[in-house]
Amino acid sequence: MSDRSGLIGLDLGGTNIKYGVCLPDGTIIDEFIRQTNKDAPAEVILNDLESAARQALDVARQKGIAIQTIGVGTPGSVDVGRGYLKGSTPNFKSWKDVPIKEILERTLQLPVYVDNDANVMAFGEYRFGAGRGYQTIISITLGTGIGGGIILNGKLFRGHNFAGGELGHMSISYRGRKCRCGGTGCWELYASATSMLENFRRWSKGREASSTREIVDLYEQGDPVARRVIETEVAMVAVGVASIINIFNPEIFIIGGGVSEAGDWFIDMIRQRVQQSAMEQSLLGVKIVRAELGNKAGWLGAAAFAREEWLNHLNAENTRLLT
Amino acid sequence: MSDRSGLIGLDLGGTNIKYGVCLPDGTIIDEFIRQTNKDAPAEVILNDLESAARQALDVARQKGIAIQTIGVGTPGSVDVGRGYLKGSTPNFKSWKDVPIKEILERTLQLPVYVDNDANVMAFGEYRFGAGRGYQTIISITLGTGIGGGIILNGKLFRGHNFAGGELGHMSISYRGRKCRCGGTGCWELYASATSMLENFRRWSKGREASSTREIVDLYEQGDPVARRVIETEVAMVAVGVASIINIFNPEIFIIGGGVSEAGDWFIDMIRQRVQQSAMEQSLLGVKIVRAELGNKAGWLGAAAFAREEWLNHLNAENTRLLT
Repeated sequence: MSDRSGLIGLDLGGTNIKYGVCLPDGTIIDEFIRQTNKDAPAEVILNDLESAARQALDVARQKGIAIQTIGVGTPGSVDVGRGYLKGSTPNFKSWKDVPIKEILERTLQLPVYVDNDANVMAFGEYRFGAGRGYQTIISITLGTGIGGGIILNGKLFRGHNFAGGELGHMSISYRGRKCRCGGTGCWELYASATSMLENFRRWSKGREASSTREIVDLYEQGDPVARRVIETEVAMVAVGVASIINIFNPEIFIIGGGVSEAGDWFIDMIRQRVQQSAMEQSLLGVKIVRAELGNKAGWLGAAAFAREEWLNHLNAENTRLLT
Repeated sequence: MSDRSGLIGLDLGGTNIKYGVCLPDGTIIDEFIRQTNKDAPAEVILNDLESAARQALDVARQKGIAIQTIGVGTPGSVDVGRGYLKGSTPNFKSWKDVPIKEILERTLQLPVYVDNDANVMAFGEYRFGAGRGYQTIISITLGTGIGGGIILNGKLFRGHNFAGGELGHMSISYRGRKCRCGGTGCWELYASATSMLENFRRWSKGREASSTREIVDLYEQGDPVARRVIETEVAMVAVGVASIINIFNPEIFIIGGGVSEAGDWFIDMIRQRVQQSAMEQSLLGVKIVRAELGNKAGWLGAAAFAREEWLNHLNAENTRLLT
């Protein structure tokens, strides 16, 4: 029996590493999660990634699947050509200046490709989720911050130096709060999951919500504080979405993150607000939808992205050899 | 004597039509300006464009220059494939739904290509000005509003539906002033030439400045109101520039419009503010410079853009015929 070919994706986050084995068409064979040692030195995190990949390789072998490539999504800005993590991210201090591709290729003996986590999530939705069939896509994830992914003409747009796409650090309030990034009034200070939890705590005078899902549940039960939090969230998300639509005039705008899974009413409310504020021409025909892959978007996208990079590499090699 | 080939560019603005004849390398042969009949029906404006083009054609003929193409820059969103002006712009009410290319090609019997005015200005700087040699370029013009042009990998990025690039309508104040576009707190309400003139009037309690250049002159003479206006302008421009750098991570950011011609100190002040607020990784290596072509950028860019579109069209035709 001939082996089927498959892919491994690893999505390194501040809390967990999510990873799994899938087929090239996105069919999930198996998936896993383990805690991130985010305060450990980079070597420990690299070891964890390697060990996760080995676990996935074992599973693939048992199921007769030959792994072609391994894709990694990581916070921070990544030099994709070298698979090198350049920038640090706040909250993840030791994790910078890491030659991820070089080290994992040496230990795992397979082609490894690395990109920013928000980029691979966008790529996952593009290949297997809400973005299937579209070519000009903006994707955001409402999480600890706001991650942004930009796909133009079917390709990830990363900026000149791999450091673009920071949609969460667009200022929506020039006199607003200072952000860890150095900016003022960054969008993610007002519209991330973190800001929802903070608003809930503040406005309920001390009551805590453990997750945005809890706030969503309370909202659906008619809780007035949850209502205020959700309405604020909708307004703040819509401000940024409208700006980005005026800038990019995309085909589709995908909104992900826990709160987006609330139900269609959340996206409907955002869509309504955006319709009141984005420019008529820029908004024309733009679909605003919720993400479909949930927290699988990262590892699935990393897997798909790595395969595509690898195929591009092979094609380039063939062209070089033939000419 | 064999004819040299040349190009015509027309830059339709709310106040003037600027136009001229140039060579493919951007050498200016002659240039002109006439008033825009902005309150007249679209037919009158089309006639004015045609008459301007005929004047330029006469000049070219006298100088032994054979015109290849005519490029037009216009306010509003343009379906570039059809050369069709789709959207109206505020302050230019009759000028919408105009098949500019179709009509001018019929009357002028030459290939005509049409794009948005901010786009052709960006293209002008890219081909002949501050953007020469760069591939990922953001250009803004501080004028009545803020026009934005985005060049990615050497090509104008217009969005899916030709309605992107509206950088002036990115909100920098979610609780700010209402904009004519329907949005709230749009950047151009705080950082355009218009806002400088308004601030000057307000803060000087009735003294008028006829242009931003006058405010610049007063600033250089030490006028305290002009100083406040300029410092505010620098801060407000920098807020948006930082956001756009975080989003696009361009190679170069070009700032045009009357006030940018003030002197290097203006761009220096903006650069300094941006360095304090943009993300370290996104800002790395980004050049922030002033535009070089002044108010010639529009017509020169329209001329260059039209030639490039025409050559692409010829190449596509050749490929079609050969296969």
